[in-house]
Amino acid sequence: GDYAKIDNHRALRNGYPEVIFCQGKSLEHINGIISKMLELGENNILATRASKEVYESVCKITDHAIYYDLARIIVIKRKEIIKTKKNILIMTGGTADIPVAEEAAVTAEVLGNSVERLYDVGVAGIHRLLARLDVICSANVIICVAGMEGALGSVVGGLVDVPVIAVPTSVGYGASFNGVAALLSMLNSCASGTSVVNIDNGFGAGYTASMINKLNGDD
Amino acid sequence: GDYAKIDNHRALRNGYPEVIFCQGKSLEHINGIISKMLELGENNILATRASKEVYESVCKITDHAIYYDLARIIVIKRKEIIKTKKNILIMTGGTADIPVAEEAAVTAEVLGNSVERLYDVGVAGIHRLLARLDVICSANVIICVAGMEGALGSVVGGLVDVPVIAVPTSVGYGASFNGVAALLSMLNSCASGTSVVNIDNGFGAGYTASMINKLNGDD
Amino acid sequence: GDYAKIDNHRALRNGYPEVIFCQGKSLEHINGIISKMLELGENNILATRASKEVYESVCKITDHAIYYDLARIIVIKRKEIIKTKKNILIMTGGTADIPVAEEAAVTAEVLGNSVERLYDVGVAGIHRLLARLDVICSANVIICVAGMEGALGSVVGGLVDVPVIAVPTSVGYGASFNGVAALLSMLNSCASGTSVVNIDNGFGAGYTASMINKLNGDD
Amino acid sequence: GDYAKIDNHRALRNGYPEVIFCQGKSLEHINGIISKMLELGENNILATRASKEVYESVCKITDHAIYYDLARIIVIKRKEIIKTKKNILIMTGGTADIPVAEEAAVTAEVLGNSVERLYDVGVAGIHRLLARLDVICSANVIICVAGMEGALGSVVGGLVDVPVIAVPTSVGYGASFNGVAALLSMLNSCASGTSVVNIDNGFGAGYTASMINKLNGDD
Amino acid sequence: GDYAKIDNHRALRNGYPEVIFCQGKSLEHINGIISKMLELGENNILATRASKEVYESVCKITDHAIYYDLARIIVIKRKEIIKTKKNILIMTGGTADIPVAEEAAVTAEVLGNSVERLYDVGVAGIHRLLARLDVICSANVIICVAGMEGALGSVVGGLVDVPVIAVPTSVGYGASFNGVAALLSMLNSCASGTSVVNIDNGFGAGYTASMINKLNGDD
Amino acid sequence: GDYAKIDNHRALRNGYPEVIFCQGKSLEHINGIISKMLELGENNILATRASKEVYESVCKITDHAIYYDLARIIVIKRKEIIKTKKNILIMTGGTADIPVAEEAAVTAEVLGNSVERLYDVGVAGIHRLLARLDVICSANVIICVAGMEGALGSVVGGLVDVPVIAVPTSVGYGASFNGVAALLSMLNSCASGTSVVNIDNGFGAGYTASMINKLNGDD
Amino acid sequence: GDYAKIDNHRALRNGYPEVIFCQGKSLEHINGIISKMLELGENNILATRASKEVYESVCKITDHAIYYDLARIIVIKRKEIIKTKKNILIMTGGTADIPVAEEAAVTAEVLGNSVERLYDVGVAGIHRLLARLDVICSANVIICVAGMEGALGSVVGGLVDVPVIAVPTSVGYGASFNGVAALLSMLNSCASGTSVVNIDNGFGAGYTASMINKLNGDD
Amino acid sequence: GDYAKIDNHRALRNGYPEVIFCQGKSLEHINGIISKMLELGENNILATRASKEVYESVCKITDHAIYYDLARIIVIKRKEIIKTKKNILIMTGGTADIPVAEEAAVTAEVLGNSVERLYDVGVAGIHRLLARLDVICSANVIICVAGMEGALGSVVGGLVDVPVIAVPTSVGYGASFNGVAALLSMLNSCASGTSVVNIDNGFGAGYTASMINKLNGDD
Ligand SMILES: Nc1ncnc2c1ncn2[C@@H]1O[C@H](COP(=O)(O)O)[C@@H](O)[C@H]1O
Ligand SMILES: Nc1ncnc2c1ncn2[C@@H]1O[C@H](COP(=O)(O)O)[C@@H](O)[C@H]1O
Ligand SMILES: Nc1ncnc2c1ncn2[C@@H]1O[C@H](COP(=O)(O)O)[C@@H](O)[C@H]1O
Ligand SMILES: Nc1ncnc2c1ncn2[C@@H]1O[C@H](COP(=O)(O)O)[C@@H](O)[C@H]1O
Ligand SMILES: [Mg+2]
Ligand SMILES: [Mg+2]
Ligand SMILES: [Mg+2]
Ligand SMILES: [Mg+2]
Ligand SMILES: [Mg+2]
Ligand SMILES: [Mg+2]
Ligand SMILES: [Mg+2]
Ligand SMILES: [Mg+2]
Repeated sequence: GDYAKIDNHRALRNGYPEVIFCQGKSLEHINGIISKMLELGENNILATRASKEVYESVCKITDHAIYYDLARIIVIKRKEIIKTKKNILIMTGGTADIPVAEEAAVTAEVLGNSVERLYDVGVAGIHRLLARLDVICSANVIICVAGMEGALGSVVGGLVDVPVIAVPTSVGYGASFNGVAALLSMLNSCASGTSVVNIDNGFGAGYTASMINKLNGDD
Repeated sequence: GDYAKIDNHRALRNGYPEVIFCQGKSLEHINGIISKMLELGENNILATRASKEVYESVCKITDHAIYYDLARIIVIKRKEIIKTKKNILIMTGGTADIPVAEEAAVTAEVLGNSVERLYDVGVAGIHRLLARLDVICSANVIICVAGMEGALGSVVGGLVDVPVIAVPTSVGYGASFNGVAALLSMLNSCASGTSVVNIDNGFGAGYTASMINKLNGDD
Repeated sequence: GDYAKIDNHRALRNGYPEVIFCQGKSLEHINGIISKMLELGENNILATRASKEVYESVCKITDHAIYYDLARIIVIKRKEIIKTKKNILIMTGGTADIPVAEEAAVTAEVLGNSVERLYDVGVAGIHRLLARLDVICSANVIICVAGMEGALGSVVGGLVDVPVIAVPTSVGYGASFNGVAALLSMLNSCASGTSVVNIDNGFGAGYTASMINKLNGDD
Repeated sequence: GDYAKIDNHRALRNGYPEVIFCQGKSLEHINGIISKMLELGENNILATRASKEVYESVCKITDHAIYYDLARIIVIKRKEIIKTKKNILIMTGGTADIPVAEEAAVTAEVLGNSVERLYDVGVAGIHRLLARLDVICSANVIICVAGMEGALGSVVGGLVDVPVIAVPTSVGYGASFNGVAALLSMLNSCASGTSVVNIDNGFGAGYTASMINKLNGDD
Repeated sequence: GDYAKIDNHRALRNGYPEVIFCQGKSLEHINGIISKMLELGENNILATRASKEVYESVCKITDHAIYYDLARIIVIKRKEIIKTKKNILIMTGGTADIPVAEEAAVTAEVLGNSVERLYDVGVAGIHRLLARLDVICSANVIICVAGMEGALGSVVGGLVDVPVIAVPTSVGYGASFNGVAALLSMLNSCASGTSVVNIDNGFGAGYTASMINKLNGDD
Repeated sequence: GDYAKIDNHRALRNGYPEVIFCQGKSLEHINGIISKMLELGENNILATRASKEVYESVCKITDHAIYYDLARIIVIKRKEIIKTKKNILIMTGGTADIPVAEEAAVTAEVLGNSVERLYDVGVAGIHRLLARLDVICSANVIICVAGMEGALGSVVGGLVDVPVIAVPTSVGYGASFNGVAALLSMLNSCASGTSVVNIDNGFGAGYTASMINKLNGDD
Repeated sequence: GDYAKIDNHRALRNGYPEVIFCQGKSLEHINGIISKMLELGENNILATRASKEVYESVCKITDHAIYYDLARIIVIKRKEIIKTKKNILIMTGGTADIPVAEEAAVTAEVLGNSVERLYDVGVAGIHRLLARLDVICSANVIICVAGMEGALGSVVGGLVDVPVIAVPTSVGYGASFNGVAALLSMLNSCASGTSVVNIDNGFGAGYTASMINKLNGDD
Repeated sequence: GDYAKIDNHRALRNGYPEVIFCQGKSLEHINGIISKMLELGENNILATRASKEVYESVCKITDHAIYYDLARIIVIKRKEIIKTKKNILIMTGGTADIPVAEEAAVTAEVLGNSVERLYDVGVAGIHRLLARLDVICSANVIICVAGMEGALGSVVGGLVDVPVIAVPTSVGYGASFNGVAALLSMLNSCASGTSVVNIDNGFGAGYTASMINKLNGDD
């Protein structure tokens, strides 16, 4: 169809995958876009915010779709992915933050990064985080995913000398206001070197972390 | 004058000091209330949110006024204050939070509590806090005063088994929204045993901590 | 599974129950965590925000689960609970606030406290509250649960000399903004000695009240 | 000048005074409007939100201006004011709410009502309010002025069977958000028969109360 | 049951009906309260925010229940209702505001008032409103119900000399924020004599209007 | 200086004046920009949000500056301005809205439009507006400037068949939230054909109205 | 029925279609209004926010209903529509904004305008927009529909010299707050000549654009 | 003094400068901290949010202080600063955003980065930005500083393949809400690879950009 202008100038230049954001799009519409992508290029394809139903529909037009259900991502792999030596560490405050963290993790992996995961290490039980200082201090870029009071980014940002990307999640209730409390907390972080993406935007965090991780080469 | 009904039934029962909130009251009005208090009872008097100018005005009607300038509190001491054995620990994230902390500290002291101070130990430099675990773990009640991302209460609340009172401060700029970010952060704390008072309400925190500290006797 | 790091250092030290927050977790995930808890320790287990469906699922792995449906709590009792002599009083403004009050009550009871209930005594019918001054004045700690205008805490806080924990609820409509009106009202309470927890956070109130009630011994 | 179209059709019909809102208007502009009013009609004139400076300026064009400094109102009395038999009771939670209460009181008086005042009887010291049930129960209309948690209206509304007008004030700090906490509290009042006006709008409350008090005659 | 303290002191004094707010209560709970009311007194009973399902359930315990479906109110009439001579006029801006208006109308009628209705006369078609100036000017009290920009109250308030109660509704979309736009608009009304109740609170408006309409007798 | 890139491609094409927004710029900085404009082109220059102090400073570099003090605009006229036959009508709700209205008026006039003014005709005194239906109905484009409840745009929009641009102003207090109430009211207007600009943005309204007024020629 | 006063004075004067907003109205109610419209006049009828179900219901009373499903509009065409020569251009940032854009497009077409569509040209891929400068610069009026960061209006407004109407959409998640981010962005646009309508208000944008496009004739 | 615990463990490890945030600190307090820093280490010192008055005070204790007045930063240079080969590009939307941009620029330079500046290239005049694509595409990291609608980050983020840090500023008025509009806009950016810092936080942006720019070496 003519409904979406596929933006493939980035992909042409540097092998970035094509990305499609599925939320709010019809199955037919999604398949139309993916078909066009399959025709036009050779890049890998990443479909985010994809339900199981979307995955099943996409399977009708390609055999190469893999579904990451926690991350709600479909990957259509057409090119080999070479991983960086240095890794991106992805941490969460609680277990309910894991879907957002996985969206970041799968995105970063498809973009060619080595990814380490450290989940459920929220600051209200600081010993869990301190027990893993080795992993934390050996990362090249860190993504901190947290809802509720969103303090993970501040504590981690104060421990390391690498860029930290903080992702607020909508996990919580009452005065968490669907992630606003965590968002504000992260924007006010006293730890220098921290920046923030939209609430629940695991994709954006993974993408940004990849850009940073691959800057200046990787060796 | 007739403008304010002095509430002295609490004081009668249990030796609580009389309290007057000076902000927004005229010098004349404040002196009127204090004069009446001086006549009516024998309790100590605590005037909060008092500027230096208020202090100087109060000095005209009594020789016993002491001014705590950081805390912005005037104390008129008329009765001996006996201190508890167990103490209240008051912590701050940064140095700009100290005035609010001192408001809590002076309040708690006038109410007869032993108070310990641990300032500028914000979570973005977690080593500073961890270096003082001894002090933190020996407190009977803890007050955590913090602005910006307000994460201090969560970290401390996770380390101890005593009640924590979190006080958000209006310290910060931009998306701190004059303390709202810290307030929300504290209300969403993942650490059980934490409760919250109004932004910059050092007095309320000191008063509540005192009530808790003196509950069930002190020995 | 590996998805959640069970925090049992508090429990080891002092017999606190293990707690699991069920909202947003899958049945499988919840059973995984509880199984691990059942293996690892001897403490009682408290599962909050648990639907009937969660309860039925938990029954498959243990015979000792009891369901408090108003409170939406599952208790797995493995150790005798010895109650304090002094009690925690839990009050509500209306009948719709009862589920949150029960979350607080069951939490406090499992933590070993004697609990008194005084429901539907909102300030718009002040005679109902005044008729029970005896009960109110004999409590050691008070939890005030209210939605709408949330004024219960202020009135009660002005009547007693013990700590009051105010819990705003999401009960109401229109400009109650799902509990924000009550939350703000409580944060601005003119009664000293009042602190606040998150909207609908009965668990947090019960836990904090227990900490306070048991401080300095109970005799 | 031509800058303001004086609305004198109400006044013509029923002897209402002319009203001018001074805030944000220049001295010259205010005097221009008042001069025109003095020429055009015989009604009393009420200038609200008037500073002392405005008063002094108005004195240059009329000898009949009286300044109520607490209320920040100038009254230019040209007609006899006959008072109603039934009265309007005006209550405040604290002493800082008095300026707003006086704006309501002077407005109601100039409009020909008998006014009773009961100040500083906030709900956090409920005994003060209960001690005056006689005055409260003999009023024909009640205005409740309160800042902070704004609960006065709910308690009073539950005690009486006459209309209550609640006026939130901007008194408070932190999470009072310049009167928003009190406003929301009042809008959510569980007491039937209560309605609300804008933050600090003493004039509106006095005017509405007068309309109600004089409805259906007064005898 | 013991779950709700029926507040019948107002009813005893002056024949007011008993009121029950059904939203958020179980069928069983509602029937329990109504049974008790049926036993205890002789007053009429008004159940607001009642779905058809609630009505059918209530029919099992009484034959006298009448259901007003637009108003979502159940009335159990046990005493004759004598209507006032002077009437309350209820106006709406649009047709979607009618359910809230009917909640006000039925409430006022059950409380013994003559009620006039004037619906769908929003200010964006001012001729519709001006065409009915006769009805508007002959009312004793007016209730203005409007969503969206909520301007009805201001225009009407400027036309009449009787009290106006403005009811914002949650009708609208986007930046109406579920009634907040209308609420703010009404609170800022430039027409003196207007007061406001909570969003969608037809009951409160009807009740307040009745109090006012019946004040000072009706003859 | 090099600090600001003067945007003169619009001006080149169609004789639009150069515009400079003075708020937040230093006197030196403003004079630097204007000097460059004076050199580079032949267009008229409009400096908005200019204080008297800015005007006096600008007089040092040009003799042609005229100051419109109500509008806070400086005009440096270098080209003849030919006025349209059809006019733009600018209305305000109150007198405090006049500065914003004048910003719109002077902007529209400098851009070559005939401008009609109708001030202080707010909807709470609807007769004032209805008395001028002739002027209202003969305009080609209308700008409605109002603070407080901001209802002017809705009433006018419903009366005419030409585009209405609504400008909320920050006039008001309390729940006007510096213009937010008026802004929301205007965005929710039930009158079709109305669009809105930023709070206090008289310049934007005047500019947009001019674009509309001059579209499709003027004859 | 009598429930809605059909406003046909505009239609009488100038051939505007009758408009009915279906959201929140019952099928029966909608058919009642349309039946009356069919009887009373000869104008075309536009039913917005109409679901497929509404369409099927309307088909029972007329054979002339056409359903635009993307736009959610029913058109009942009874009069020939003559199109303008100059056109309205409707642009969107993404594909999810298309329903709102289509609401604007169908509205404008039924009102007799030539409409051009340019979809999915968001500013994060600016080459897509620049590639179509010809279409953009030949429009007479432009409607920019965008969610998320809502920047489309600013970029387009800076490129053209015709009026731009910006429509924020509720497309997005997290800190988009259902269109608030886009709304604020558009209200703050630095491009002169831009005005804004309510979130998702495609109808209002189409109607306003039509008024502007047809002003001063079309030749 | 003892009032601030200087955090010099980062500096020890990697030559980072000491940083002091001056806003809200007294002159005496600032000099106390700087004196201690001068004694304890050899690192450069950066004092942000420093007024001219602070600078003059600091000059009393050291001869090496340099004041960057636009950036409001004092630098005390004690070690040679070696610049990276790759550069950080700092862009602003308008001229009023320059102080925040300069805070970022000076921070990045003191941290050892080559910095390029491109100011006043806001999206409402997109030709200014497109004219400098060479500079934009040759940067290694980009900081976009913008107030008002804050769209700069989205446009730039869509043009480049390097990380973009967006800094909202409090520049604007009305519905810019002191930077909230820009903040939300940036958080919702459709351009992947963009992250955000607090409103007006030039320091944080410069620091984060430096961390990124120096990651993986610079050659
Ligand atoms: N989960 C996500 N959150 C935010 N943005 C996303 C997400 N997934 C994809 N995107 C962005 O959305 C673009 C695709 O949008 P669309 O053309 O609507 O499918 C991609 O180029 C990404 O920049
Ligand atoms: N629709 C309504 N909106 C607000 N308050 C109501 C409503 N209906 C009843 N009420 C109030 O709620 C009280 C009964 O509440 P409850 O005891 O929870 O049933 C009544 O006395 C009324 O004051
Ligand atoms: N009062 C105003 N409000 C909003 N925007 C304005 C105002 N005055 C001028 N502008 C815009 O600001 C631009 C000039 O901004 P600057 O380059 O910062 O002086 C003009 O081209 C106008 O688009
Ligand atoms: N302009 C600024 N904005 C935000 N944070 C800053 C700024 N300047 C310094 N900081 C941070 O504040 C810390 C110093 O704070 P303090 O100990 O209160 O002087 C530094 O380590 C930085 O992380
Ligand atoms: Mg956990
Ligand atoms: Mg520090
Ligand atoms: Mg009840
Ligand atoms: Mg008092
Ligand atoms: Mg209608
Ligand atoms: Mg006027
Ligand atoms: Mg796209
Ligand atoms: Mg510029």
